[in-house]
Amino acid sequence: MTSKTRRGEKKLDHVAVAVKDMASTLRFYQEVMGISPSHQAVLPQQGVKVAFLPVGDSAIELLEPTDPQGAVARFLERRGEGLHHICFQVADIDAELRSLAQKGVELIDKEPRPGAEGRVGFLHPRNASGVLIELVQKD
Amino acid sequence: MTSKTRRGEKKLDHVAVAVKDMASTLRFYQEVMGISPSHQAVLPQQGVKVAFLPVGDSAIELLEPTDPQGAVARFLERRGEGLHHICFQVADIDAELRSLAQKGVELIDKEPRPGAEGRVGFLHPRNASGVLIELVQKD
Repeated sequence: MTSKTRRGEKKLDHVAVAVKDMASTLRFYQEVMGISPSHQAVLPQQGVKVAFLPVGDSAIELLEPTDPQGAVARFLERRGEGLHHICFQVADIDAELRSLAQKGVELIDKEPRPGAEGRVGFLHPRNASGVLIELVQKD
Repeated sequence: MTSKTRRGEKKLDHVAVAVKDMASTLRFYQEVMGISPSHQAVLPQQGVKVAFLPVGDSAIELLEPTDPQGAVARFLERRGEGLHHICFQVADIDAELRSLAQKGVELIDKEPRPGAEGRVGFLHPRNASGVLIELVQKD
């Protein structure tokens, strides 16, 4: 596998977990699972800090809210800690979002917006049996 | 990546989704996302039927309960449809479970048991910020 995808081909880029305490979750993955973060970032627009834990060709993304009104903070209040979304890497996010809209898929983002690692768009969980799906085109 | 892992190395084998209606979820992944199932199975001991949707080096596993008293049926009642667990492939599951127990990790399975694609063991979600983690050693 290369890190880029061909047109129409998808890979599972990451699985995201909403956590209350990034430091203790990172300790679990490092000390218990033997998986260390590749990078961490603060995303003020999304109201979260993130850490990426590479596993094979994919990654676990940890999300801790920095904004108590943000989507991840609200998710934690409603559902508690746990799996939050999955993300597929695509080659052309503009074409993918256009194609999904034509198929009648309900999109949270009709146009791509900047994410932690490229341009992203989210599909509404009610399309996919309750699973929030993100698409990313890597920079 | 090869499909087998070296000792100590992990890969994200699959992400599992609990669904009420396998057929409509498969239609979504095939027709909308362009991802087709590689195989399907019924696991009477776990009270589920499963379908695997390969994406890159990983997969989405769909779980639909066949036993209304089973763990996945209870999950659907309590939480509704959505992300259920993540699974890491390991090279030596006996050694991994022994090492986790020594580190004080709370295990659902102290000994490996047969799963859909090899011997498996689950860690309790309270170890890992609410995420149910499965380990698998492929046959």
